[in-house]
Amino acid sequence: MGLLEETISLVGDISKEIIVKAQERQDSLTKPRGAFGRLEDLSIKIAGIQNRIDPVIRDKAVLLFGGDHHTVYEEGIASAPMDVTVQMMKNFVQSQGAGVNIIAEQVGARVVVTDVGVALDYPKDLNIYRKNIDRGAGNITKGPAMTYEQAKQSVEAGIEVFNLENEKGLDIIAVGEMGIGNTTPSSAIYAYITEQSPEQVTGPGAGISENKLEKKIDVIRRALEVNRPDPDDGLDILAKLGGFEIGAMAGAMIAAASKNVPVMIDGFIATAAALIAIKICPKCESYLIAAHHSAETGYSSVVEFLHQKPLLDLGMRLGEGTGALLGISLAETAVNILNKMTTFEEASVSEAEERFTI
Amino acid sequence: MGLLEETISLVGDISKEIIVKAQERQDSLTKPRGAFGRLEDLSIKIAGIQNRIDPVIRDKAVLLFGGDHHTVYEEGIASAPMDVTVQMMKNFVQSQGAGVNIIAEQVGARVVVTDVGVALDYPKDLNIYRKNIDRGAGNITKGPAMTYEQAKQSVEAGIEVFNLENEKGLDIIAVGEMGIGNTTPSSAIYAYITEQSPEQVTGPGAGISENKLEKKIDVIRRALEVNRPDPDDGLDILAKLGGFEIGAMAGAMIAAASKNVPVMIDGFIATAAALIAIKICPKCESYLIAAHHSAETGYSSVVEFLHQKPLLDLGMRLGEGTGALLGISLAETAVNILNKMTTFEEASVSEAEERFTI
Repeated sequence: MGLLEETISLVGDISKEIIVKAQERQDSLTKPRGAFGRLEDLSIKIAGIQNRIDPVIRDKAVLLFGGDHHTVYEEGIASAPMDVTVQMMKNFVQSQGAGVNIIAEQVGARVVVTDVGVALDYPKDLNIYRKNIDRGAGNITKGPAMTYEQAKQSVEAGIEVFNLENEKGLDIIAVGEMGIGNTTPSSAIYAYITEQSPEQVTGPGAGISENKLEKKIDVIRRALEVNRPDPDDGLDILAKLGGFEIGAMAGAMIAAASKNVPVMIDGFIATAAALIAIKICPKCESYLIAAHHSAETGYSSVVEFLHQKPLLDLGMRLGEGTGALLGISLAETAVNILNKMTTFEEASVSEAEERFTI
Repeated sequence: MGLLEETISLVGDISKEIIVKAQERQDSLTKPRGAFGRLEDLSIKIAGIQNRIDPVIRDKAVLLFGGDHHTVYEEGIASAPMDVTVQMMKNFVQSQGAGVNIIAEQVGARVVVTDVGVALDYPKDLNIYRKNIDRGAGNITKGPAMTYEQAKQSVEAGIEVFNLENEKGLDIIAVGEMGIGNTTPSSAIYAYITEQSPEQVTGPGAGISENKLEKKIDVIRRALEVNRPDPDDGLDILAKLGGFEIGAMAGAMIAAASKNVPVMIDGFIATAAALIAIKICPKCESYLIAAHHSAETGYSSVVEFLHQKPLLDLGMRLGEGTGALLGISLAETAVNILNKMTTFEEASVSEAEERFTI
């Protein structure tokens, strides 16, 4: 049994018993029932995922996967030159002054950067996991993004990175990416898996003109015509439409689920990876938490398709796992409330539980 | 000149020059312009309020003001007994296991508790500012909540507490409250100042039955008939319809504005205090930031009336400044981004600024 198959076999159902007990604990805290709103649901979900009534959020990391996309350059719809991908990855680990670094510092999360599909060279001495499978995903209007074997390799790269980091300790992860042009494969995956038209799920990404947006929609339409993935095979969908970083993100999600670690999903591209992860391993869905609402066209419909409602909606559209990191901060709040808040019994707030909930 | 008049005279306009400079700094950071969405606007607003391009959020406090309301007991619409107000205030400072304590610990904020209008006794040795003006606000269906002089005293109590805490250092404050029954005066203030009907701005508060909600709406209707405040006099509106903690919160807001300290506004009741604060001192409006969207009926219309859009909407309805504290956490993120993120120049991301913003 390979790494992927083994990992999938370890993904179990969430404990219903723990969920019930965590709900009981929430209802015993000194507040009107439900007064912490979605933070209460979040604490209970994390308790279920971690399989403990007193969930822990101490060791945190944002796993960032980088990859390039030849489609957007060959088809003339790129928002930035290809070298921005490597330059931003260098920025993550060298100057550590990218958006993700700033928020990770505040949240207390490690920033873990992995190259799975970057096209250009970068210095060898950088603190980056080197798991490059190929130098950029292929032009999906001409054929698949990668071979089926490469798709599996990309997912397993994500699993390997998660497992390595998990050995250092991980109570929750954020999953994010860096890859100029990766809204295009993401929109293609959205359209294919949720059975929507390219128009419904394609937006301007990091910023392209109206004219380029029309071309982008056409690129996705052609990609779906040229590539006819097997609808029941997540790896085939990834191979035909994906990107290496999308596969690695999906792998990290499945690996986290296999180890009872909750996953905060960043915006548009991470959500495409979530669609792939769930196709490959349906049970991993319960371990995923949508962190920030992407303003990109099509996101709303897909996050609804996943039965999720993002915790935050601050109009952010950076990627890099920044939205997911803010989600981790809220998860920590939610867990602190569940674990540390006084119960009515402890506080002896007179009969208030009963009266509060009239 | 009294304390209130002196404080009002110190509230100035926000620096337009700093706003422009902070915007320029935001646009030079290594990200597509606007990619941090509302956090960018927030960082710029805080820069303007603090009158410095490198705003600081280090010393933080949540100022909680407690008061009782005879209206809800005499009219039979209380959601909880009166002793819950003091018991929760004890909980804030003794066991420190209330919701506000848990979030304040994570955010790194001091919890500052002040009695301005609590009706019942509590131990003398508690770490509570004792500025009790009267033992509960009067029944507003029978007459004013307090005298005009008491209204001014409650506002000045908030100013005094802010000034005392500001001496220990304050870069931002959250303002919240504890007071069973204080959604009733808040709804009355909403209705009066924003010229809406009691039905439009009255909800179930911490939880009352449908039948009691009808009575609550009738109570507010009668309070507005019996009391006819001077529409241009914030202190008169407070005296006729308010509560002592609402006045003190308004005072803390005006005091913060006078010292260039941004104010995170908690939910429903704090927003009523904001309406009063702005009536008393219109310029303080620019220093207020709505933190969390209250689900209580009428909040949406009033926050819109204040030209604000709350940062968070997590379905929380606890009060105690909990939503405002989460807002402080986001403010810290926003300021960190502005101050610490690498500029394109520093990162030498090749010509990316130009290309990112095509």
